[in-house]
Amino acid sequence: MNKRIIIYILGWVLIVEGITMQISTVTSLIYQEHEGLYFLITGAVCVGLGLLAVKVKKPHNMVLYQKAGFAATALSWVLLALVGALPLCISGEIPSFVDAFFEMSSGFSTTGSTILTEVEHLSHTMLIWRSFSNWLGGMGVIVFLLALIPKLGGQQNIYLMRAESPGPIVGKAVPRMRNYAALLYAIYIGLTVLELILLLCGGMGFFDAINTCFATAGTGGFGIRNENMAAYDSYYLQTVIASFLVLFGLNFSVYILLIARKFKQALLMEELWVYIGVIVVSTAIIAVNINDLYPTVHDSIHNSFFYVTSIISTAGFGIDDANRWPELSKAIILVITFLGAMAGSTGGGFKVSRVIILFKEVKKEFALLVHPRNIKAVKLDGKTVDHSIMRSTSMYLVIYMGVFVGSFVLISIEGKDFLTSFTSVAACMNNTGPGLGEVGPVGNYANFTIFSKCVLIFDMLAGRLEFLPMLILFSPKAWKKA
Amino acid sequence: MNKRIIIYILGWVLIVEGITMQISTVTSLIYQEHEGLYFLITGAVCVGLGLLAVKVKKPHNMVLYQKAGFAATALSWVLLALVGALPLCISGEIPSFVDAFFEMSSGFSTTGSTILTEVEHLSHTMLIWRSFSNWLGGMGVIVFLLALIPKLGGQQNIYLMRAESPGPIVGKAVPRMRNYAALLYAIYIGLTVLELILLLCGGMGFFDAINTCFATAGTGGFGIRNENMAAYDSYYLQTVIASFLVLFGLNFSVYILLIARKFKQALLMEELWVYIGVIVVSTAIIAVNINDLYPTVHDSIHNSFFYVTSIISTAGFGIDDANRWPELSKAIILVITFLGAMAGSTGGGFKVSRVIILFKEVKKEFALLVHPRNIKAVKLDGKTVDHSIMRSTSMYLVIYMGVFVGSFVLISIEGKDFLTSFTSVAACMNNTGPGLGEVGPVGNYANFTIFSKCVLIFDMLAGRLEFLPMLILFSPKAWKKA
Repeated sequence: MNKRIIIYILGWVLIVEGITMQISTVTSLIYQEHEGLYFLITGAVCVGLGLLAVKVKKPHNMVLYQKAGFAATALSWVLLALVGALPLCISGEIPSFVDAFFEMSSGFSTTGSTILTEVEHLSHTMLIWRSFSNWLGGMGVIVFLLALIPKLGGQQNIYLMRAESPGPIVGKAVPRMRNYAALLYAIYIGLTVLELILLLCGGMGFFDAINTCFATAGTGGFGIRNENMAAYDSYYLQTVIASFLVLFGLNFSVYILLIARKFKQALLMEELWVYIGVIVVSTAIIAVNINDLYPTVHDSIHNSFFYVTSIISTAGFGIDDANRWPELSKAIILVITFLGAMAGSTGGGFKVSRVIILFKEVKKEFALLVHPRNIKAVKLDGKTVDHSIMRSTSMYLVIYMGVFVGSFVLISIEGKDFLTSFTSVAACMNNTGPGLGEVGPVGNYANFTIFSKCVLIFDMLAGRLEFLPMLILFSPKAWKKA
Repeated sequence: MNKRIIIYILGWVLIVEGITMQISTVTSLIYQEHEGLYFLITGAVCVGLGLLAVKVKKPHNMVLYQKAGFAATALSWVLLALVGALPLCISGEIPSFVDAFFEMSSGFSTTGSTILTEVEHLSHTMLIWRSFSNWLGGMGVIVFLLALIPKLGGQQNIYLMRAESPGPIVGKAVPRMRNYAALLYAIYIGLTVLELILLLCGGMGFFDAINTCFATAGTGGFGIRNENMAAYDSYYLQTVIASFLVLFGLNFSVYILLIARKFKQALLMEELWVYIGVIVVSTAIIAVNINDLYPTVHDSIHNSFFYVTSIISTAGFGIDDANRWPELSKAIILVITFLGAMAGSTGGGFKVSRVIILFKEVKKEFALLVHPRNIKAVKLDGKTVDHSIMRSTSMYLVIYMGVFVGSFVLISIEGKDFLTSFTSVAACMNNTGPGLGEVGPVGNYANFTIFSKCVLIFDMLAGRLEFLPMLILFSPKAWKKA
């Protein structure tokens, strides 16, 4: 493995984190909090070490093949969460390092699970860092580096982008990767700013609005109020948030096609319609199912729509306790927790496009059974799905199930009830955040043992990177010299 | 589709069911119960209708291709359960037809779920029929027909056997199918008789012993006591039962190889060792985990071993209420509920060999990631696994997950707690029988609505036939003329 280039990338990750961390230092100056100091120092050390790594270990060859690309991405994310946890821990706001590491893994992986029982006890300095981790994790730090560093943004480094971007990649590689990465970030920033303006127009305070935007954009789900989004008790604000969750759960290719004025191509994406279809149908069924619990039909629809968008986008915001909903609603919520958002979005989960590909493969298998000589290729959006993508999608399901079952058994050692154990793993692996039972929308992860927290940290990071990059770190063969 | 031959097969199914049903008539004579009359009449009508179908609709061509073979098998099983339910219902012992149909679907599919709260209220006549359905369903009625009817047992009808025999078929087709089917039944009868002798030696009454043997052999799990196997409060008896569950969960190829004195080949089967390994490891972990609940270490091991064998073989016998066990034990039980027994056994579930194949495929995918040019074939027992088997195994996982998720959402309409809904579907689809919560080892399925019972009936039959045969009945294309 080309270790020099991995160190080079990790160096850049440290630099980016050290600099972006200063958002907290600035916040501390505004709110006159002393916690900014920890971010200033940590940031300075990060930038120093990063520069050292980048300068001293400058690689001769900037090409990263699949294995090294995956390993570099996974290590970057672990480093990101480890370093991000330092100020939380050193400042004493989250005294246990495992807790702080959990919180930042949850933040960067855009899960939004928290170990805090009283989030309002945190300083503004810490809150903004927590929310910002959702934002940076949403589009990804590697995509940021690809846009930033000309030498890295070469076509050969497509594996770096593949490791970080969610979903099975259908179609050819991207022509100009550096431009593509920059375009993704531009759209991302544009949408975030648009949401900020709309929230401010609705009367939300600036600090609440910026934090909410970060958490929405990354579909992370961190809130700065104990009551999470229920604190913004306004149909307008909650509907803006829910709508942006839908938008950030879209495959960013849709925006790129729209910008390129390829409207027809954008609107003909099958994944788009399945995604919208699932949101509409789930919202309708749940709204009917919970109707008795709310004073008006409008309230039922509002609550249903908000929570469906919150879960399918894998943000995991809450405005009510879904634990009190009927079993059918909870079952649907659980199913869309696993489903997740569109590929190429900032959302997590299994991804809508994978379900479509698997469904089409099963349909083909059936057709073969009925007419054995009638062999048709599986197509998505009119294009034949490559055989290797079909195979890797099936394998993804197997790995996904394997990690889920393994984690569930390990979490069960803890002895919590079935609903809590099952949904805590589901919520962390799919980067949703809240599950049901003890870890429901009004609960948290504070009561888990250190062992369980470590399992869930792995699940969050592995889920965000879609398993292979994290799993390759544990393969001794991958580290051997060729 | 060759409808004549389907009617011909269904005719034979009626004849076999009509005749075997007389086991109840004989029992009623011994115990001087009047219920035998219902079986005599139903049986006579079955044989009459069956002969009519066989004689009048005699097909010219005895070859059944995949589609028709699968449809014929699925229809046979639905017919078997429908007709088998008639005497239960007409006699008034299970007055609701849906309940009777549920009970017999559970019986023939070897699930062992019951809607009875007091099984001891049934007459001996009904009890033996219920247990016998476990036995016939275990090895399968179609396999029986293949052995019985020379014209059907031709090499071309391999699809009939494939539709009914569980597991992905690795290797070539069977050379002499009729002999093979007869050999399977001979081994099946031999093992059943051996268990009967051992139970009688342990002092179990003849009627209890024969019923227990039927339920063990088919890995069905029906008991004739309210306390199920806890009624036979003897280490010897319970250990004999548990040991035979392990034996009936074995791939019958192991016995065939042993008979052919191919000891080395039998002992080198990878699936065998994984199956045994899972039993040993699960028993050990659970025994340690439940140790505080039992007076002695021996009791813990005994209870753990009994329930592990009961669940992995998908019989679902109970000697204690697993609901009171710690969460880790329950989690392991749930995982092996899904895992199931070996392919080619009388057990249900996902099957050990499928997990092995999927695991090896993932391993290959990893190897490709690490060394992209190092392409190695996936091998099982030293033989290359055919590409079509790998694909169908992946697709099996997708269908399995799809049916599970769909059924779980439908059952949730009922409004029972998550544990009950989740495990009732798992237990029916995998043909285990008891789940946890309300449907735990001391519970039953009496309180479900008719709608939920119908969903579970589908799951039980579809699970027994491994989905494709049942699903093809719902495909309009399959019924169209070519």
